[in-house]
Amino acid sequence: MQIAKVRGTVVSTQKTRTLTGMKLLLLQFIDADGQLLPKYEVAGDTVGAGIDEWVLVSRGGAARIESGCEIRPLDAMVVGIIDTITVENRLLYSKKDEYRRPALGAQ
Amino acid sequence: MQIAKVRGTVVSTQKTRTLTGMKLLLLQFIDADGQLLPKYEVAGDTVGAGIDEWVLVSRGGAARIESGCEIRPLDAMVVGIIDTITVENRLLYSKKDEYRRPALGAQ
Amino acid sequence: MQIAKVRGTVVSTQKTRTLTGMKLLLLQFIDADGQLLPKYEVAGDTVGAGIDEWVLVSRGGAARIESGCEIRPLDAMVVGIIDTITVENRLLYSKKDEYRRPALGAQ
Amino acid sequence: MQIAKVRGTVVSTQKTRTLTGMKLLLLQFIDADGQLLPKYEVAGDTVGAGIDEWVLVSRGGAARIESGCEIRPLDAMVVGIIDTITVENRLLYSKKDEYRRPALGAQ
Amino acid sequence: MQIAKVRGTVVSTQKTRTLTGMKLLLLQFIDADGQLLPKYEVAGDTVGAGIDEWVLVSRGGAARIESGCEIRPLDAMVVGIIDTITVENRLLYSKKDEYRRPALGAQ
Repeated sequence: MQIAKVRGTVVSTQKTRTLTGMKLLLLQFIDADGQLLPKYEVAGDTVGAGIDEWVLVSRGGAARIESGCEIRPLDAMVVGIIDTITVENRLLYSKKDEYRRPALGAQ
Repeated sequence: MQIAKVRGTVVSTQKTRTLTGMKLLLLQFIDADGQLLPKYEVAGDTVGAGIDEWVLVSRGGAARIESGCEIRPLDAMVVGIIDTITVENRLLYSKKDEYRRPALGAQ
Repeated sequence: MQIAKVRGTVVSTQKTRTLTGMKLLLLQFIDADGQLLPKYEVAGDTVGAGIDEWVLVSRGGAARIESGCEIRPLDAMVVGIIDTITVENRLLYSKKDEYRRPALGAQ
Repeated sequence: MQIAKVRGTVVSTQKTRTLTGMKLLLLQFIDADGQLLPKYEVAGDTVGAGIDEWVLVSRGGAARIESGCEIRPLDAMVVGIIDTITVENRLLYSKKDEYRRPALGAQ
Repeated sequence: MQIAKVRGTVVSTQKTRTLTGMKLLLLQFIDADGQLLPKYEVAGDTVGAGIDEWVLVSRGGAARIESGCEIRPLDAMVVGIIDTITVENRLLYSKKDEYRRPALGAQ
């Protein structure tokens, strides 16, 4: 999975019928130092993620594993809202205080 | 899914038999600021997207989920025509007035 | 699908048994302006594409959809020979006269 | 598979129900010379890999092959802890003495 | 498929049980001019490829098509040892004499 930040929503009325009722979030990817990348993904969400939350996004067939999603043409899905990311016993990110510091530079 | 703009069509007569009757659109990808990228995809379309419309494109197995597409060797499919993209309560794109402004720069 | 030009063939005698009898073409990818890219793919072909022809190549599970290919370990397949590519009512490529001009620059 | 180093863990409470009980590791990719890359992956782990160990990570559907994982929306999984990497009869990496030297430069 | 050169082997004792007995090769990718790229893949091998041989590698679900591999969490597999690569009637590579010359530059 990749780490991404929820930035917004995408609305589509004229769409494949099986996408009806699926919330679509605009996610911006985050690199290993916690910085926003230009890369994004529009993903389905059944977890209930909100703007600015950091989430885990699964891509490919993993987006259609959840019950009810087998028939939806999704290739990306939010699978969890991140509480903490810990790197070698240091806290890189915590949802609680939105604390983060660079931690994954090349050695 | 990725956001793309419909730029044109691709016609192929000598092809895998199961692609018969499937409209193939040439899509150009759009980055998180609404700018056209050099990256493109030729995708099937059953939604009825037209030139210049912004669409959501699903890739991989998601392109073969729709009823009737299980037997077609597609790896990309238009799954919806985008009405609006909203980023942190600001409108990045609206089909109605084709209004858009940069909104996803790194913070 | 991506657009590619047939450049040559790859021959392998010592291979997975299920690849026996499958013609393998060396395809070079073409960008949205019709220029050759360094990126390539070795793909199966049942359509009968010839050297210098522009083809559509499907990747991933799409390469194993065609009847008889379910048991072959292919991840890329030629699914059609391109007749024409039209971008906003202008002809980008035509197999007949091999006419092409740049048409997909960023706006 | 790709070679990666275990750097940390990701914790998510509000997540897809089927991810319950699955340990999620933050892996940083390693290039062919044994150097850390900026690229990372959050992957499931049932092998029991620890911080700083070098592992093999499988992506895509391969992450859902293991018994019990078919219903989990994972797209990356640790499939083995690496003991040794040998390149042309020279040892590039050994878990025992963490010995490594560049070995895969272009010829 | 991509073209790669066999560079070495990867050994893992503590791994997913279903990988037992599967030989894992370290492959380095080769570009369309026959030059080694920094990109690599660790792939299963049942074809019997040896050091320095050029092989075809399939990725994704294609790595689990071969009989017995459906239950192995592999995402890359050697599917053939390359005898010859021919580009527009010129020999780019021949296993017999390891002859090769640049042949795929942009036109």
